[in-house]
Amino acid sequence: MIIMETGATQEQIDRVIAEIKKYGLRADVSKGEFRSVIGLVGDERQVDFARLATLPGVKEAIGVETPYKLISREYAKLSEEVSEHGVIKVGNIKIGGGEPIFIAGPCAVESKEQLFRIAEGIKRAGAHILRGGIFKPRSSVHSFQGLGANGREEAREALEWLCEAGRKFEMPVITEVRGETHVDLVAEYVDVIQIGARNMYDQDLLASVGKKGKPILFKRHFGAGIEEFLSFAEYIAAEGNRHIILCERGIIPVGKGKSYTRYTLDLAAIPAMQKETYLPIIADPSHGTGRRDLIFSMSCAAIAAGASGLMIEVHYNPEEAIVDAKQMITPDELKVVIDTCQRIHRQIS
Amino acid sequence: MIIMETGATQEQIDRVIAEIKKYGLRADVSKGEFRSVIGLVGDERQVDFARLATLPGVKEAIGVETPYKLISREYAKLSEEVSEHGVIKVGNIKIGGGEPIFIAGPCAVESKEQLFRIAEGIKRAGAHILRGGIFKPRSSVHSFQGLGANGREEAREALEWLCEAGRKFEMPVITEVRGETHVDLVAEYVDVIQIGARNMYDQDLLASVGKKGKPILFKRHFGAGIEEFLSFAEYIAAEGNRHIILCERGIIPVGKGKSYTRYTLDLAAIPAMQKETYLPIIADPSHGTGRRDLIFSMSCAAIAAGASGLMIEVHYNPEEAIVDAKQMITPDELKVVIDTCQRIHRQIS
Amino acid sequence: MIIMETGATQEQIDRVIAEIKKYGLRADVSKGEFRSVIGLVGDERQVDFARLATLPGVKEAIGVETPYKLISREYAKLSEEVSEHGVIKVGNIKIGGGEPIFIAGPCAVESKEQLFRIAEGIKRAGAHILRGGIFKPRSSVHSFQGLGANGREEAREALEWLCEAGRKFEMPVITEVRGETHVDLVAEYVDVIQIGARNMYDQDLLASVGKKGKPILFKRHFGAGIEEFLSFAEYIAAEGNRHIILCERGIIPVGKGKSYTRYTLDLAAIPAMQKETYLPIIADPSHGTGRRDLIFSMSCAAIAAGASGLMIEVHYNPEEAIVDAKQMITPDELKVVIDTCQRIHRQIS
Amino acid sequence: MIIMETGATQEQIDRVIAEIKKYGLRADVSKGEFRSVIGLVGDERQVDFARLATLPGVKEAIGVETPYKLISREYAKLSEEVSEHGVIKVGNIKIGGGEPIFIAGPCAVESKEQLFRIAEGIKRAGAHILRGGIFKPRSSVHSFQGLGANGREEAREALEWLCEAGRKFEMPVITEVRGETHVDLVAEYVDVIQIGARNMYDQDLLASVGKKGKPILFKRHFGAGIEEFLSFAEYIAAEGNRHIILCERGIIPVGKGKSYTRYTLDLAAIPAMQKETYLPIIADPSHGTGRRDLIFSMSCAAIAAGASGLMIEVHYNPEEAIVDAKQMITPDELKVVIDTCQRIHRQIS
Repeated sequence: MIIMETGATQEQIDRVIAEIKKYGLRADVSKGEFRSVIGLVGDERQVDFARLATLPGVKEAIGVETPYKLISREYAKLSEEVSEHGVIKVGNIKIGGGEPIFIAGPCAVESKEQLFRIAEGIKRAGAHILRGGIFKPRSSVHSFQGLGANGREEAREALEWLCEAGRKFEMPVITEVRGETHVDLVAEYVDVIQIGARNMYDQDLLASVGKKGKPILFKRHFGAGIEEFLSFAEYIAAEGNRHIILCERGIIPVGKGKSYTRYTLDLAAIPAMQKETYLPIIADPSHGTGRRDLIFSMSCAAIAAGASGLMIEVHYNPEEAIVDAKQMITPDELKVVIDTCQRIHRQIS
Repeated sequence: MIIMETGATQEQIDRVIAEIKKYGLRADVSKGEFRSVIGLVGDERQVDFARLATLPGVKEAIGVETPYKLISREYAKLSEEVSEHGVIKVGNIKIGGGEPIFIAGPCAVESKEQLFRIAEGIKRAGAHILRGGIFKPRSSVHSFQGLGANGREEAREALEWLCEAGRKFEMPVITEVRGETHVDLVAEYVDVIQIGARNMYDQDLLASVGKKGKPILFKRHFGAGIEEFLSFAEYIAAEGNRHIILCERGIIPVGKGKSYTRYTLDLAAIPAMQKETYLPIIADPSHGTGRRDLIFSMSCAAIAAGASGLMIEVHYNPEEAIVDAKQMITPDELKVVIDTCQRIHRQIS
Repeated sequence: MIIMETGATQEQIDRVIAEIKKYGLRADVSKGEFRSVIGLVGDERQVDFARLATLPGVKEAIGVETPYKLISREYAKLSEEVSEHGVIKVGNIKIGGGEPIFIAGPCAVESKEQLFRIAEGIKRAGAHILRGGIFKPRSSVHSFQGLGANGREEAREALEWLCEAGRKFEMPVITEVRGETHVDLVAEYVDVIQIGARNMYDQDLLASVGKKGKPILFKRHFGAGIEEFLSFAEYIAAEGNRHIILCERGIIPVGKGKSYTRYTLDLAAIPAMQKETYLPIIADPSHGTGRRDLIFSMSCAAIAAGASGLMIEVHYNPEEAIVDAKQMITPDELKVVIDTCQRIHRQIS
Repeated sequence: MIIMETGATQEQIDRVIAEIKKYGLRADVSKGEFRSVIGLVGDERQVDFARLATLPGVKEAIGVETPYKLISREYAKLSEEVSEHGVIKVGNIKIGGGEPIFIAGPCAVESKEQLFRIAEGIKRAGAHILRGGIFKPRSSVHSFQGLGANGREEAREALEWLCEAGRKFEMPVITEVRGETHVDLVAEYVDVIQIGARNMYDQDLLASVGKKGKPILFKRHFGAGIEEFLSFAEYIAAEGNRHIILCERGIIPVGKGKSYTRYTLDLAAIPAMQKETYLPIIADPSHGTGRRDLIFSMSCAAIAAGASGLMIEVHYNPEEAIVDAKQMITPDELKVVIDTCQRIHRQIS
């Protein structure tokens, strides 16, 4: 990290950037009212920090050998600009810091009618952001892959429904992107781009969505440790995009015998990650448990653990849903979840 | 399960028990005001239930091939006596159903003075039961094994301190028993006997404490699935002891890279197990996280998930503690945890 | 699966395909000398198999609801064409069934000189296929990402070195592709395309490489169960490409305390998968252990478990390697591994 | 560790032991022809090693803060006596170093006839040691717990059958002990005492069998890391018993979806532990896989990985076995396993 002196000129900053590039690295510049900070992206081991410290306008030059630094609390402490990223704005919604935010909607968009009916239900229940899966990553190629898989026109049509529902019920919208070839299309429509758990490791996809500049909802892979999860979030940040919402959605269950939950929701990861990064963190109790009858309890628990919001799958008639029917709740049940979570949130803040 | 008719005589019950014994099985009898239920302990596969159903006084005879039936909700539904076991009384304290119960104290009893000072602190903070480890199961034979390991007299002395502190500060007491040879000694003193995670699989120890009839705090092993955990609780119940408090204390962390928590506190196991068994369930955020700075958040989360109480390690000067110093909180911090948890509990009940 | 009668005409086959398409599914046709078999790709639940069975030329129409059927032993039993896919030909090399095949080379291609020197070494040691990483999936964005990450021209140059080394030392070549945008480029050069463990779940990438028709080396993700691994291999097969070599490379280590191996090489997965699929299976002891001093033992063990080959990272001076230095062995050590493995193979065949 | 000078007197050794006891620690003395080494058992942190080094006859005094030191290769290097423990003698059988040893027999002893028939079969197949479970640790209290659970007399009778079969077919015998109260009884009869995976953490049981001085077969718990496993083996060694055979028998399977093996046999743990300890290590492919059709492959793999032997469950009619029927092989199949493993062993030695 290169900390510039108060009043360092743009010319001096450019000089530092140029020096960084000579090492084959990229520079991540955060400008503040009082001082600017320049993060190095890439392998720092060959960098001569002592030499960089002597450049005009440089106050301090420190090597940081952690796999995530651009999203770290340390960086936020140095840079006023970065510290603002603890709150992510999506339309009028603010994620991080204040009231918990509820993202809800169907697992998969099945039809315009289904989407609008659910959108209306979740709005009434108090949800803030509308979700709807159009490209579905499924374990089996023989399962329904989402309307987006039927072709470019079908994908565009479903995206248009999503935006229309969002406008009608006054909610920003979010959908998942599954492959690089769909990033442009998805980014054209939605307010937040979701990277699903199975794509957490897909570095080229992360770089690709990072470049779009839109807020990213980034889900932890079910086999990823916390360090790994944050290190891959850094791939997005390294493209200059720090509008990242982290999402805990459950890890691989451990233990012999019948499994009672689909995944193990690792709620301690929420406060543990909050010590490491300034990025807001939400939880997904729907995938985390895979059980409708556990959503209420685990929603309450996630908010009590400090989550900045929840992502919950909703359907007016859960049994009917093509994908993940077992983990859907109804809009009425969602309302109880939201109300209770908001009351719990008040006890811990 | 043999469901007796209303008004079945003791003679008829004895006849059924005798028949069960002929198969080499044991009988678990639950008498209720209206009807009695007899559970079979052992391998039912050779039992002729059709024949048992014809015995006088028998209403129904059903084979149940699950590894846990004496502690199941199904059993509680049939038997009035069993259903009362959802609440366990320890002195004036009731665990299960009502207000959350807080068990607190030092990880290891180090001296009388240390114990009394901590007992006073936790009482002031609002705790209900005093814990203190005297036999410590440690990963290394080269670590401090608890005062109890120094000899029978030292163990007895420490147990006396514990009881004295309990009386002085008006709290029931609990300690862990690590091997069969200490069961009698421990049972002589404490109100609740703890079986630690590492001894969860120790069937002879479970049978041994089961026979004592005292309430048991039974911790889940960190490699055990829920089915396995409940199946081993059944070993205690099979001795006719259903005063069992289950405790979730974290499972093996999964994932590459540096570990940020000592274990993964599996909070979804709490509501999931509540669907299976009538036994009360608490959580241990101290061992579950291994990090002082996560105790508050995970305590709140566990109560929000529906836990009937918490077990928390406390020391007036955490740094000083010989065992588990990193996960202790102070009595003042405990007070904040208890107050917040009680407020959260009110939101979900 | 639609099993056609012996002597069914192309017209009859086309008719079946057309019917399948009406359900929104794709057809996977395997022609044999005696009979043809048509697999359905997609969600079969709406398919009326009774009706399909009445079509002219159809002998039998059976629904198969498993997530992997195109790569299953059941399919191979029905179809002569499929059964041949148990052996995959790469140049003169045959993988599966016969002698074990050794794929070796540097983790990352660092320079032309490094690559040629290692290629010469492994050829002398008896290796069959040359590997060399050009696009490296790394946990940290701040680590070396492979020469391919420097730009399209650098990637092309490195690929040309790889092919040149392959030609010079008479070995087919393999490299990993990390994102969809590089599939065309990589497929233009190499004999086998590798999908790394972190990309196992990347369905769009799998479909993309599947379409290329070239043999694919497909690595199991470290958090994936066997069923999941095979289900994702099916994504490649669903594109009509059954030239898939499966690779076990270690799963997440379980257990408390210091980790002694980077991953847990799950060798039982090799014979277990051989009961499920006809595809050849190899092992990667380099990533599976992460320890140079365990490569010999685990190579021997993998071959003894029935692996059709091994992928091993080699460097003339392991300490010097930029990536994964700790798990490299020298060409001389490779020779001992290959010789011993070949002798072991003879004992079990 | 206190390394004595060559020619140090017994008086000097006793003086050192006395000093060690003053710290509340125990001393583990290994005498050699040339020099004696004294290991400290307990928490060394208060020990003043500089002072110990000045005692007459002391050559060197070094603190070793690892959880396993008495079983470590470092200790074996210092002490000639310890280094001999790499080979454990059971009757005429030597485990460790030379030819692989095969322990076989029924999972559970069901009757005298069953035991003798199996004993005859395994002897013919080439097995060296006869196993037979009398106290069975089962997940469910409702499953068959072994003949030993029926009472002391039944246990004694079954133990007598085991010894009689051992004498008749000239094989040493081994059985598992499940609780402290049976240690004396079991030790009275068998040549090797087995501690099963579920009892790995039972420190009082370990101390109890350690005191018996007989060889111990010590199985790794399925949730235990290598460091933990070795740390608990140290509990046995701390009682002065270093006749410990370590046994890898599979760890918890990781990964979503249907499980194809009962556990994950962690074969890399074998060479990894061989770098840490001088104790011989065997594998148990029966429990490790839970699948009869994988025993051959995983037996071969374990020997190729460097195991000093195998423990395999055998029944003349596997389907009939009361316990673990799915993982039994026949004596004829055992013969093929033993013959192949011996040939494989010759390739790596």
